Amino acid sequence: MSYELYYWPQIPGRGEFVRLALEEAGVRYRDVARERGHGAGMPALFALLEGRGLDTPPFAPPVLKSGRLLIAQTANILLYLGARHGLAPASERGRLFVHQLQLTIADLVAEVHDTHHPISGDLYFKQQRREAMRRAEAFRKARLPKYLGYFERVATRAGRARWLAGGRLSYADLSLYQLLEGLDYAFPRAMARQRRRHPRLQALRARVAARPRVAAYLASPRRLPFSEQGIFRHSPELDR
Amino acid sequence: MSYELYYWPQIPGRGEFVRLALEEAGVRYRDVARERGHGAGMPALFALLEGRGLDTPPFAPPVLKSGRLLIAQTANILLYLGARHGLAPASERGRLFVHQLQLTIADLVAEVHDTHHPISGDLYFKQQRREAMRRAEAFRKARLPKYLGYFERVATRAGRARWLAGGRLSYADLSLYQLLEGLDYAFPRAMARQRRRHPRLQALRARVAARPRVAAYLASPRRLPFSEQGIFRHSPELDR
Repeated sequence: MSYELYYWPQIPGRGEFVRLALEEAGVRYRDVARERGHGAGMPALFALLEGRGLDTPPFAPPVLKSGRLLIAQTANILLYLGARHGLAPASERGRLFVHQLQLTIADLVAEVHDTHHPISGDLYFKQQRREAMRRAEAFRKARLPKYLGYFERVATRAGRARWLAGGRLSYADLSLYQLLEGLDYAFPRAMARQRRRHPRLQALRARVAARPRVAAYLASPRRLPFSEQGIFRHSPELDR
Repeated sequence: MSYELYYWPQIPGRGEFVRLALEEAGVRYRDVARERGHGAGMPALFALLEGRGLDTPPFAPPVLKSGRLLIAQTANILLYLGARHGLAPASERGRLFVHQLQLTIADLVAEVHDTHHPISGDLYFKQQRREAMRRAEAFRKARLPKYLGYFERVATRAGRARWLAGGRLSYADLSLYQLLEGLDYAFPRAMARQRRRHPRLQALRARVAARPRVAAYLASPRRLPFSEQGIFRHSPELDR
């Protein structure tokens, strides 16, 4: 069985949360919009988003094809993959908590996006630069510490547990790794100031990066770098 | 068995998506923060949000207590309730699609919130009024039609199906009802212009409102009105 992932080809974005789960699970997948010379690529992604004739049309990428299933919304894809590949607890309590954490990460990711596009995703950054500076300041001062403080408490509450939901790695751990990487890229100064307050998160992130399959993936050309086109983008004026 | 819902007592907000599911399911629940004279109310909500000693702490309300389970994130609560009370399809495909729709509704709700608070939830509206006017305009012109067009396509694709996911009502139908009610309240002019483009959504909304348990709930004092403190709030300058 092989999966097909559909996501914008130039940025890690929300697709990266899905890629990390697929890579850690060690399953085969096609990253369709990034393939060249197969006649698929971007047209296939746009066809999906048009949605004609689809029984379960997506609103936006990422979209995962698994046999006859077509699944959209990042957290929903991870819910599916988590249950299939041991990336979520077997217990109802654990499963719901991991999904809750993922949805909280998704909320934070949306807020990160809006630091550089507080007015509209259809306008250029320079057309909303002043608003972005105000929003980014509020984000750095209030939202970022609140979210990271929450995740640090989650990582601490379990005592000696290695992972967010206990003894086994889940998709939320993989996503938290990506979130911290993205935040360090976008807000290096703000994150440097806050890092010592989150020793558990930093340790957890290092453990994720050291997973053999994750480490192999991060060193491969499949891993896309952050850039100024993505959700996590660095602009010095937004990180004073 | 009885549920406990924890949410801000003065606004429908995100708690309302959970209330509609509980009401349609016909189950008993305590709306804890709205109770008076029980010694619970707001202090109980704040204690939950502090999270001390909790195994699965929430980041924000709504939170649902079900026996020993404590579940946060609106869509996650609905995932749980949907499976328990027949408010989601039994098939994996249907279950995932309903959750995908709910997460898309959640994204739209967050964008509605940011039309009046585009800079920070900690600032007053008047401190971000200019930014709000720009963001609301982009929302009305691009995002709102895109989202509603998507949901109309979903409602249309199934041909004669009565509900978003087919033959049976799901929690996504209940949430879509609340979403349309909120949008009409917040953006009456923009919605009036768009209404004729979404006949299926309007019919679906009427069918939800006519469900006996929903109708009884809407006529009861348990139903909170929209107001200028909520996520859906009306400001004429944001609805030109």
